[in-house]
Amino acid sequence: MLNVGLLGAGRIAGVHATAISAHRESTLAAVSDVNIESAERLAQEYGTTARSTEEILADTSIDAVLIATSTDTHSDLIEAATEAGKAVLCEKPVDLDLGRARRCQQAIAGRNQPVMIGFNRRFDTHFATLKSALANGDIGKAELLSITSFDPAPPTVEYARGSGGLYRDMMIHDFDITNFILEELPVTVSAVGSSLVDPAIGALGDVDTAVVTMTYASGQIAVIKNSRRAVYGYDQRIELLGSDGLLQATNVLENTVVTSNKSGVTAAKPVHFFLERYMQAYSAEWAAFVEALKTGASPPSTLEDGINALMMAEAATHSAKTGVPVNLDTMTA
Amino acid sequence: MLNVGLLGAGRIAGVHATAISAHRESTLAAVSDVNIESAERLAQEYGTTARSTEEILADTSIDAVLIATSTDTHSDLIEAATEAGKAVLCEKPVDLDLGRARRCQQAIAGRNQPVMIGFNRRFDTHFATLKSALANGDIGKAELLSITSFDPAPPTVEYARGSGGLYRDMMIHDFDITNFILEELPVTVSAVGSSLVDPAIGALGDVDTAVVTMTYASGQIAVIKNSRRAVYGYDQRIELLGSDGLLQATNVLENTVVTSNKSGVTAAKPVHFFLERYMQAYSAEWAAFVEALKTGASPPSTLEDGINALMMAEAATHSAKTGVPVNLDTMTA
Amino acid sequence: MLNVGLLGAGRIAGVHATAISAHRESTLAAVSDVNIESAERLAQEYGTTARSTEEILADTSIDAVLIATSTDTHSDLIEAATEAGKAVLCEKPVDLDLGRARRCQQAIAGRNQPVMIGFNRRFDTHFATLKSALANGDIGKAELLSITSFDPAPPTVEYARGSGGLYRDMMIHDFDITNFILEELPVTVSAVGSSLVDPAIGALGDVDTAVVTMTYASGQIAVIKNSRRAVYGYDQRIELLGSDGLLQATNVLENTVVTSNKSGVTAAKPVHFFLERYMQAYSAEWAAFVEALKTGASPPSTLEDGINALMMAEAATHSAKTGVPVNLDTMTA
Amino acid sequence: MLNVGLLGAGRIAGVHATAISAHRESTLAAVSDVNIESAERLAQEYGTTARSTEEILADTSIDAVLIATSTDTHSDLIEAATEAGKAVLCEKPVDLDLGRARRCQQAIAGRNQPVMIGFNRRFDTHFATLKSALANGDIGKAELLSITSFDPAPPTVEYARGSGGLYRDMMIHDFDITNFILEELPVTVSAVGSSLVDPAIGALGDVDTAVVTMTYASGQIAVIKNSRRAVYGYDQRIELLGSDGLLQATNVLENTVVTSNKSGVTAAKPVHFFLERYMQAYSAEWAAFVEALKTGASPPSTLEDGINALMMAEAATHSAKTGVPVNLDTMTA
Repeated sequence: MLNVGLLGAGRIAGVHATAISAHRESTLAAVSDVNIESAERLAQEYGTTARSTEEILADTSIDAVLIATSTDTHSDLIEAATEAGKAVLCEKPVDLDLGRARRCQQAIAGRNQPVMIGFNRRFDTHFATLKSALANGDIGKAELLSITSFDPAPPTVEYARGSGGLYRDMMIHDFDITNFILEELPVTVSAVGSSLVDPAIGALGDVDTAVVTMTYASGQIAVIKNSRRAVYGYDQRIELLGSDGLLQATNVLENTVVTSNKSGVTAAKPVHFFLERYMQAYSAEWAAFVEALKTGASPPSTLEDGINALMMAEAATHSAKTGVPVNLDTMTA
Repeated sequence: MLNVGLLGAGRIAGVHATAISAHRESTLAAVSDVNIESAERLAQEYGTTARSTEEILADTSIDAVLIATSTDTHSDLIEAATEAGKAVLCEKPVDLDLGRARRCQQAIAGRNQPVMIGFNRRFDTHFATLKSALANGDIGKAELLSITSFDPAPPTVEYARGSGGLYRDMMIHDFDITNFILEELPVTVSAVGSSLVDPAIGALGDVDTAVVTMTYASGQIAVIKNSRRAVYGYDQRIELLGSDGLLQATNVLENTVVTSNKSGVTAAKPVHFFLERYMQAYSAEWAAFVEALKTGASPPSTLEDGINALMMAEAATHSAKTGVPVNLDTMTA
Repeated sequence: MLNVGLLGAGRIAGVHATAISAHRESTLAAVSDVNIESAERLAQEYGTTARSTEEILADTSIDAVLIATSTDTHSDLIEAATEAGKAVLCEKPVDLDLGRARRCQQAIAGRNQPVMIGFNRRFDTHFATLKSALANGDIGKAELLSITSFDPAPPTVEYARGSGGLYRDMMIHDFDITNFILEELPVTVSAVGSSLVDPAIGALGDVDTAVVTMTYASGQIAVIKNSRRAVYGYDQRIELLGSDGLLQATNVLENTVVTSNKSGVTAAKPVHFFLERYMQAYSAEWAAFVEALKTGASPPSTLEDGINALMMAEAATHSAKTGVPVNLDTMTA
Repeated sequence: MLNVGLLGAGRIAGVHATAISAHRESTLAAVSDVNIESAERLAQEYGTTARSTEEILADTSIDAVLIATSTDTHSDLIEAATEAGKAVLCEKPVDLDLGRARRCQQAIAGRNQPVMIGFNRRFDTHFATLKSALANGDIGKAELLSITSFDPAPPTVEYARGSGGLYRDMMIHDFDITNFILEELPVTVSAVGSSLVDPAIGALGDVDTAVVTMTYASGQIAVIKNSRRAVYGYDQRIELLGSDGLLQATNVLENTVVTSNKSGVTAAKPVHFFLERYMQAYSAEWAAFVEALKTGASPPSTLEDGINALMMAEAATHSAKTGVPVNLDTMTA
């Protein structure tokens, strides 16, 4: 049985608490949060106790921590937790600052603690099936990847202000899925973005509608499209053209009911947002972490994966500003 | 070049006029109708002349006639046209009266003139593809056939009054498609029907919603569902379960545009009615008739096919009245 | 907290054990089975104890029992459990014998204990959405209901022998869903069936492919199609034509991945069988039972519902044998 | 009746010959080609005569010419035909050389002859429906346009050599459709391309897989994806995100038959290539030209439209070479 400390007690922490509790080989041993009341509320709901982060890290009966705190604390907590001998599953992104993330990577290099970054979409059954089909040769060699990733509604301006911008906050998932599927890092990253949805977000210098194109040494091309607003729901699709065919992962709909009337033939909307869409993925992510700890295998999405995605987000942010493509290796400086 | 006389100048005659004119190996040589003005209007539209039926049948330069007159004249005209040495393509049904249709069959038996009944749906590319897939072994042996066939709106009461009732007028197409696909006549025919759409049609003793179930010596089962009203358009679907899979011919939609908004994900409606849905089939039907005349092959939907469908319609009408299944061979008396 | 005794420890009992354990307001307090080892194995898996049925019924700390034993024990156990003051959720069917089921109904009439029959499909989110859409007026008045319900593969001959036949064992779900959606009992039930899949099942006098048509006082018509074999997976669809449109609940597919290649455009198969397809429904069923106990409301699928479905299965069995429609009220004798 | 001279007798000329002949208000009066035999063959097939281009232009009974010759002759023939007082429908592209196309525009400026460029896709019923839905406000304001346009198989190296490259030859259709839908010219054009399909085409300096991103003064963004090879058929899709929803024009499939078996649920492939996919569009294009001549309205796709698309193709070609986005107004120099 894996004893788990949950750092953070916000919305996404609740998702993880459910997955930890439901798993037969893990127990939610403690919860911490800067807001004590939040920690206590979550602890009570899951029949566990609220403690301070320090206590959790100091408790040798706790095997692993799940970091679901605000992004600016991720690097510090990864360092502290590995120092304390805990295995770590940390929510994405590693950090908003690429340099800080790299220093974190160096700091923990010798500690030999498993550190996994929570790129939940890798564990989505539909996307994983698409990747398996590619590996299985169903469409030959990958040539052109397209990701459509639209949120149902824009975040608050407050959220946007601290988010690091669309490329680091939202598209980072798509950068990681691109790496997950193509298993190759891009050479160039080229971004265009617009503020069309909420002028207040635009006023921050951020965008809400963006397209990023990436080129690869192998000749592959990838395109990511993001929008902060798709009024019909959470639009999460992947499409991959290969030498022998096309793979598409289409949207998960709320139900299978189709209504035909004078207006046409209407199916349900895509499920509303990430909690509904990716609940299965969060559970599978947690199961994969537990499995990696049991077998001693490397976790399926590493700190390096987190840094790669962050590097691409940085490149995209830079490209959008300068109006020209950015070579990814200039991000390594 | 095949010189064709068109008997009848109503709506369906116009459909055939288009097919005859567009075919490179046939010419619309003359049109007749009990309503002279209609004949003249159609003749003018297609650049040909209006004549009497007698003149057309007497004209030895005319090779074939297409009979698109009212149903009660079909048997007489088939007999007269074959007597006059013409090949015949006659609209369905052969007759509303099974006995009359059989006498027609006997009358023309020795004349050796090709007579084809216009079961246009056999020539629909989608249904024909389904039949090919069955023949190709794609789903193994046929087990359970379901036909959904709904009109967009009920006919006028006047039309219904002279139609012979839903089973003879509307479901006759589905009986023929059943025979076309299964290539076996049923043993029993069982019908239930309701008057739900237009009470005035019900007042005639007719139904507007009906289900017919048929059993076969081979163990196959077939179900046909009809309704005179599907407000979303002409619903024409076939579904066939076999030992190795399922074949479905789904609806042809007006266009491929899909709109996603707060109400859901909406595709276009099925094309409105039979003219839009089966225009391709009417052309292919005509081409098959021309081809049969050229090669001397038997036409692909014969007078016997017409009589079989009529026999099933009679059986269904009888079953609906008596409330018990009818053995098809009792219809041969 | 609701303390629950689970009677039966077979496959379906395991499904219920999961639902009972996962629900926040219920606890799996004990498991019994005629096979002690099975009971102990299940008890251990869910962290509870194996006891005899008698002990469970005698234990006043146990509030409710879930009956998942063999069908021939259902009536006895419903009677004993209500006598012992327990609320009951009993797997379908109530009994294979209509008379016995009715005696059970009479026996428990005055006891005032909640008894729910486990028609899990009523709690399927897709079917429930279809029913809501009908209630919401989305398609006007219901006219023609079609249910397609195919299993992926036939059961063993041993299972078939004790099953009561396709109509009582398999189609009983569809009879109940018909009642659930139309909220009206049929007047006539007409069945045809064939043995096409497994001759050994046919040798028992049972069928594996069947169509039942039902008529209603209101003029509605319903058709149910069953097959014991759909090689592509569990085919569970409902289609309802109404005066203002059509509702369809289509299949749940294994995933959303679509592959386009030289063979065509291929989506995933329907999920394989009832455990995958209806796991959500089993949980929702349990939640509805718990909710009914809390609020004192009548359970959403009653013993009377179970008897109605059984009555229709009896009528269908009789109709298939005699070859003529059966009036449902002759089943009440 | 419009008398039409057809200049060119190749494959696409045959498509136009069919449309011209089938239209009730136009007649195919003559055909010319540098290859006399080709001209004679086509003329015979359509019951008209083969003549020289000079004769056709000099014949005052000929009202209009359809230019379907090789691209390098388009500008000369547009000039000569308008000089001769003919209305012109010219196949796309206007020219491979932007400067030459502009000189052509200037040359014919004062002649007041209708000149239409054959962007057939504007007349495709599906794309036109999408545009109407946008105009109708179905998705609010357009924000992000995506065009997927894949050929089933690469052209021959000989064809590719004279084609002007993928951007001018293939993507030019997508540039025009972009303009047709968004009704705004882009500010920047950014292209990346790879040679993945046929190395011999790559050896010419051409690409076979490409993505172009365009930005607009209004903030809209457009993406075009092209590949010379989609083994599953001609993939022609448009997707437009707006402030109130999403519009998608999906592929036209060969038929509506769906096969479910152990491998999955398989629909037909997209129709194979442009002749099958756009035959309706070619007819509608011709009808629109005839209608414009009758009413005196400006043709729905003008020489200016042709030059705009060519300008974007030039910009994309330049961007792909230099690796940086190109401002469209630098193409006007």
